Amino acid sequence: MPETTASRPNVVFLLADNLGYGDVGCYGAGELRGMPTPNIDALAAESVQLNQFLVESACTPSRSACLTGRLSIRSGLSVCVAPGDSGGLSSDEYTLGNLFKDAGYSTRYYGKWHLGERAETEPQFFGFDQWRFGFYGSSDGSMNGDNFSRYHAPQSLQESATVVLREASEPGSPSVAGRPYDVEVRKNIDNLMVDDLLEYIDDQSSSTTPFFAFVGLTRPHFPNNPSDGFKGASRIGGYGDCVMELDWNVGRVVTAIRDAGIEGNTILVFASDNGPTVTATVLDELHVASAGPWRGELGEPWEGSIRTVAMVRWPGVIPTAEVSGMVSIMDFLPTFATILGLELPSDRPIDGVDQLDYLRGHQPESNRDSLITFIGDRLAAVRWNQWRLYTAEYTRSSTNPEVGGWMGFVNQPHTHPLAFNIEADPHEERNRFNENAWLMRPYAEVIGEYLATVKDHPNPPAPNFIDFPT
Amino acid sequence: MPETTASRPNVVFLLADNLGYGDVGCYGAGELRGMPTPNIDALAAESVQLNQFLVESACTPSRSACLTGRLSIRSGLSVCVAPGDSGGLSSDEYTLGNLFKDAGYSTRYYGKWHLGERAETEPQFFGFDQWRFGFYGSSDGSMNGDNFSRYHAPQSLQESATVVLREASEPGSPSVAGRPYDVEVRKNIDNLMVDDLLEYIDDQSSSTTPFFAFVGLTRPHFPNNPSDGFKGASRIGGYGDCVMELDWNVGRVVTAIRDAGIEGNTILVFASDNGPTVTATVLDELHVASAGPWRGELGEPWEGSIRTVAMVRWPGVIPTAEVSGMVSIMDFLPTFATILGLELPSDRPIDGVDQLDYLRGHQPESNRDSLITFIGDRLAAVRWNQWRLYTAEYTRSSTNPEVGGWMGFVNQPHTHPLAFNIEADPHEERNRFNENAWLMRPYAEVIGEYLATVKDHPNPPAPNFIDFPT
Repeated sequence: MPETTASRPNVVFLLADNLGYGDVGCYGAGELRGMPTPNIDALAAESVQLNQFLVESACTPSRSACLTGRLSIRSGLSVCVAPGDSGGLSSDEYTLGNLFKDAGYSTRYYGKWHLGERAETEPQFFGFDQWRFGFYGSSDGSMNGDNFSRYHAPQSLQESATVVLREASEPGSPSVAGRPYDVEVRKNIDNLMVDDLLEYIDDQSSSTTPFFAFVGLTRPHFPNNPSDGFKGASRIGGYGDCVMELDWNVGRVVTAIRDAGIEGNTILVFASDNGPTVTATVLDELHVASAGPWRGELGEPWEGSIRTVAMVRWPGVIPTAEVSGMVSIMDFLPTFATILGLELPSDRPIDGVDQLDYLRGHQPESNRDSLITFIGDRLAAVRWNQWRLYTAEYTRSSTNPEVGGWMGFVNQPHTHPLAFNIEADPHEERNRFNENAWLMRPYAEVIGEYLATVKDHPNPPAPNFIDFPT
Repeated sequence: MPETTASRPNVVFLLADNLGYGDVGCYGAGELRGMPTPNIDALAAESVQLNQFLVESACTPSRSACLTGRLSIRSGLSVCVAPGDSGGLSSDEYTLGNLFKDAGYSTRYYGKWHLGERAETEPQFFGFDQWRFGFYGSSDGSMNGDNFSRYHAPQSLQESATVVLREASEPGSPSVAGRPYDVEVRKNIDNLMVDDLLEYIDDQSSSTTPFFAFVGLTRPHFPNNPSDGFKGASRIGGYGDCVMELDWNVGRVVTAIRDAGIEGNTILVFASDNGPTVTATVLDELHVASAGPWRGELGEPWEGSIRTVAMVRWPGVIPTAEVSGMVSIMDFLPTFATILGLELPSDRPIDGVDQLDYLRGHQPESNRDSLITFIGDRLAAVRWNQWRLYTAEYTRSSTNPEVGGWMGFVNQPHTHPLAFNIEADPHEERNRFNENAWLMRPYAEVIGEYLATVKDHPNPPAPNFIDFPT
């Protein structure tokens, strides 16, 4: 990429679902945990590996933040969209899809959406030419059929909430429903999705139009029923099998880009949307994901929920390295805007920051030194430099360790925040606020900056945990 | 090294004190935790990095196991030697020092011993020509002077238990006491030790006699009072400063070996003796070590206590790699015996196994699939393949989280062991014995094999936690 001129590289953005910081080889796990990930590790060795990639704490919020470059609360999507909910991505939002479309790209969205279930919230209304192997919700929906019959759900629910695969081949047109996304289809959906992606990569390699593919892979979100070829591949059961299947699919994409002869002009991103599910037991199998050295899991305010895996490969432009500065999932939008030489809309707060020079090694420090974390609609935590500051004490129930997440806040907000030094105390076990009361000032400033933007640009109504039928 | 002939490489064995799995860069920490370790990371990139290096749970036991290739309980050293204790390494033991001396090496022991406080337990009675910058106990003893006056200790104790540096320049002769090892000397002891080591390396490089240097570095054991040059070097206080000072000294040794022109014929080992101290607060500063993804800390039976950092560099013989099979600190003795072409004594159980072919990449699997862990004199846990099997429930006190270690066993041994799958459940939170009662058989077999050796070779009397004066 020339120093001053925008370029138009192809971009393949692979987003894994709930992959933990402590799951893959290049982050210290993989083979060591009985599930080798040679393809992801090899990709990392050719990429800038982000060792402090920060996200939102669950699927819908983090995907909203990724696509819009904004805190999900600004889009009314800080709570996961549940089957039958009426909410979703607003037509006012400007997404990665819009950005690449404005740059003249061929654009495709693959797989999981989880940003609304109405036609007008679908990807093809946000700059994506096509949506393929799509489904509205999350992969746990693939179990609905089995669960509904097991638990005698009302017939109306069985009909309305069966997740179906969708296809949209016309930009701006609603999708068409296809076959149900049940546990059988779930076994192979990533493989089918990647088969199709490989054809797209091959087709586009001979085109003068660059392409952008955003791929919502479904692994290793539960249920962990791998395809037949990966059953028993790992030493730790279904979860490990599915991580290995994910790794295999990443390898297929890497190979396809190389075989198509476009490796030098293609940015390949591999990232996870949020931390792992650790405590769930699904389909009678223990979930065995790990957040590595960090505390907590998906849905919680702890670091293990919001720090996960990410790497960016751009041969000849981004040097291979491991970097440890803060990079948010919201930073992709402004970074790609810089690469493409496009301006982002100025009529809304954009929380992401351009990280191109940091990723390229042109500056030693990340352009980010703070981050706000919402859990549901609650401003739960503030990150400022190495400090994680919590607005309220948070815990798991002592009688039922599965009660955490949105239900985990003890109903006694502290006047002062709790303060954990994430470098000194990676497992966040020692509140150091008492000796560091000066943290009140940066804490207030980070929140204050956010509140000032909300004053000018009020958030939509806070999302409800239950979207009551009207 | 030829395929069939023994060789006589120089060996420098650097043993750090209480360095955690989650502390250095090549194990996923370092800069990410505010304490860059560029020299250790660079060494790892030229070494085989052991990602499953298993030790005993505290200083004395692990050092005994390292030097003798045997479980420390066989040597009566499964409990740390306390100041004034009468016990120590028995003259019957055969150590790494004896092995290299038998091979005709020049041999030196540097620094921390912690294997006895009587003349006949000193390193120069176990094959080491010299003991330099030596001290009997542990580095916390450097605080005795301050603590004794602060807490009004009896005068007799102040005189008897002040730790002093010792020098022994004649093999088989007792050491001579030097200046007190107090907190001021403690600041620079590693630097002085390495200064002297560098001279030794340089001197030996022109000799036809190979050399073996075992270096008991003192960092990052508390107290974490770095030398003046490293005060404030890290972002996380004294602990980080001292990890960085340790890293700097590792770099100095690497450079000296290269500058002496002996890199190609020198094995360089860098390892830690056991997991980190996490909960201690020393000199009013929080200890901020980390065991990474593993549970627990020094002195406990959990994985975080007994899995730590190790790497072995031998250019042209051991390929650079990360390996994840089990390697015990006891395995060094038989591995070096193979390298040197020497037989070990056959009149005692040797628990270590030869790992040379594994380290050289000549076989895919480690030669070890089990390990017994003692905590104090209690057989606390059995490792068998990926399972960690505990003889008793173990916990920290709920009212005082600093009550753990030897005091942490709940007084209700289980009839069946607790069983944790260390690959699937790295933080050891889910006992899976109930679904895997078959584990009773390998559990019994591993213990049975040990008991059979004890029948033929009884252990010395179990060490006491308190060695009452007689």
